[in-house]
Amino acid sequence: MASNKNQEYWVGFDLGGTKMLCVVFNEDFEIIGRARKKTKGHEGISAGLKRINATIHEAVEDAGLALRKISGIGIGCPGPLDFKKGVIREAPNLGWTDIPIQKSIEKEFGCPAVIANDVDAGLFGEYKFGAAQNVRCAFGIFPGTGIGGACVYEGQLFRGSNTSCMEIGHIPLINGGPIDGAGNCGSLESVASRLAIAGAAAQAAYRGQAPYLMENAGTDISQIRSGVLSDSVESGDQAVKAIIEQAAEHLGMSVVTVVHLLAPDVIVFGGGLIEAMSEQILPIVEKVARTRILPSLKDEFKLVEAELGDNAAVMGAAALARQFSLGD
Amino acid sequence: MASNKNQEYWVGFDLGGTKMLCVVFNEDFEIIGRARKKTKGHEGISAGLKRINATIHEAVEDAGLALRKISGIGIGCPGPLDFKKGVIREAPNLGWTDIPIQKSIEKEFGCPAVIANDVDAGLFGEYKFGAAQNVRCAFGIFPGTGIGGACVYEGQLFRGSNTSCMEIGHIPLINGGPIDGAGNCGSLESVASRLAIAGAAAQAAYRGQAPYLMENAGTDISQIRSGVLSDSVESGDQAVKAIIEQAAEHLGMSVVTVVHLLAPDVIVFGGGLIEAMSEQILPIVEKVARTRILPSLKDEFKLVEAELGDNAAVMGAAALARQFSLGD
Repeated sequence: MASNKNQEYWVGFDLGGTKMLCVVFNEDFEIIGRARKKTKGHEGISAGLKRINATIHEAVEDAGLALRKISGIGIGCPGPLDFKKGVIREAPNLGWTDIPIQKSIEKEFGCPAVIANDVDAGLFGEYKFGAAQNVRCAFGIFPGTGIGGACVYEGQLFRGSNTSCMEIGHIPLINGGPIDGAGNCGSLESVASRLAIAGAAAQAAYRGQAPYLMENAGTDISQIRSGVLSDSVESGDQAVKAIIEQAAEHLGMSVVTVVHLLAPDVIVFGGGLIEAMSEQILPIVEKVARTRILPSLKDEFKLVEAELGDNAAVMGAAALARQFSLGD
Repeated sequence: MASNKNQEYWVGFDLGGTKMLCVVFNEDFEIIGRARKKTKGHEGISAGLKRINATIHEAVEDAGLALRKISGIGIGCPGPLDFKKGVIREAPNLGWTDIPIQKSIEKEFGCPAVIANDVDAGLFGEYKFGAAQNVRCAFGIFPGTGIGGACVYEGQLFRGSNTSCMEIGHIPLINGGPIDGAGNCGSLESVASRLAIAGAAAQAAYRGQAPYLMENAGTDISQIRSGVLSDSVESGDQAVKAIIEQAAEHLGMSVVTVVHLLAPDVIVFGGGLIEAMSEQILPIVEKVARTRILPSLKDEFKLVEAELGDNAAVMGAAALARQFSLGD
């Protein structure tokens, strides 16, 4: 299929709190190379930037490409970011601040690099290749430790002045609700993140109301991941089921806000919690949203599950590098 | 200043519940003609469309122009709208549905016409000529009987699939809050619209806690308009002051949602309630918002008062006609 004339190769990189993933794509966005390393944030920024470059080198070698063949590199990062400077302003999970990741990569590889918030990159991946293709406006909601949001509007990521936006996890939802990681009460993520659910489920386990969960994860919320929550519900822990259902209702209310404001064509739900429990969560989200939204807007959007899993962010980051370089 | 070569003239029309206003602008967007009539919605759609055309004719005559000189007509309408068909789907205050206003005007005047939600038109006016000029992203919040919202993003109104969006009045804010006009609990407009404020103030008057208000407006909420609310606060009705302050706090929380999602550069507050009481309301809105928004976003926006008053919608509608025709 591919001739050897001006073939394009795009690299997507996903910098996570525990691991980094690099994938090389050909111009049809087929995967032709891949590498993965632990992030090891505790080793510091300088060591981290070296590991990032080493991971990209490894993926390019895995693809069997010469470095000069790479057209561009897209990097999904934890935020907040400074897009203009190509700097990660703060990556709390890594303990890093002011990381000049774009320049570091451009210097090493001699091609354009572009940074994006990892949630933005993931939604852009779903928009280009996954669950939200060919729509005018797509919104992504990704419940995890926090709850990330992103929006693609008329082919482009919707962006704040110089940083990412669509911080859906931080919208106020429950007046007098719990305190979240930013010190605010009743934000969406204070009541519907995986962490909020784990906190409530641990209490149920402690009270003896979630025997499966108690036996398989105990009351340490760091052990109460999406998979065990799903198994707990499947195994009959009614208290956990009720907690999940309440979180789904809160997520539904966040959809009410999103649709009233942005009226997107598609809302994509993704992330580990959704992957583990989409059947428990999404019907409730949809019911709340369709019941609560104005008649003129309530049937104007689809609610879908993300399709690309861990590949969404690297595919989206690579596609952003392509958009940045070619303007498409 | 103007020569007689290819001079452009743009018409802005604002269809309100009680009155209609038409203004003719030259290419520098100076007002050169104006006309105003009562809307008389009870006379029906056909009579209404004739009154609209008559009002436009009158304004063009007032400007001393021949009809063929008009480059385009922009119409601010109550929503929801069908942009593609140029139809007002529903105008509850007029008792009208499915009004083909665009075609009616284009047929009469032989030039392009474009319809816009009146809140969209108002914000676009502020963006082109008023309080939100030259910004990448402007958000407008207009508390009145309900609470309207709008967003200009990179020079264009942000639009839903085929209707207006940014329905900020309908975002859920207070769980278990009052029932609003759409039958939902705790939306922003259920607690912070002029109507919500009037409802609470009427109760204070009835209880004897707002003597000035009782004397000057009584307990009929249709008499409790923005002006008398402002006078009541000025005259020492403490209960009314507290009601206004609480509404301002709710408006502040809606700003928290808007900034976390859209990260606009400017938020414009306008409408009768703000014109009457900006000094009581806006400092509270600002304090709540700056206190409650994430550090990376909290200082990235300005909060300003609208500047154009009743001219915002006609100026914005005319500018939209220009953008629609010339693509700028």
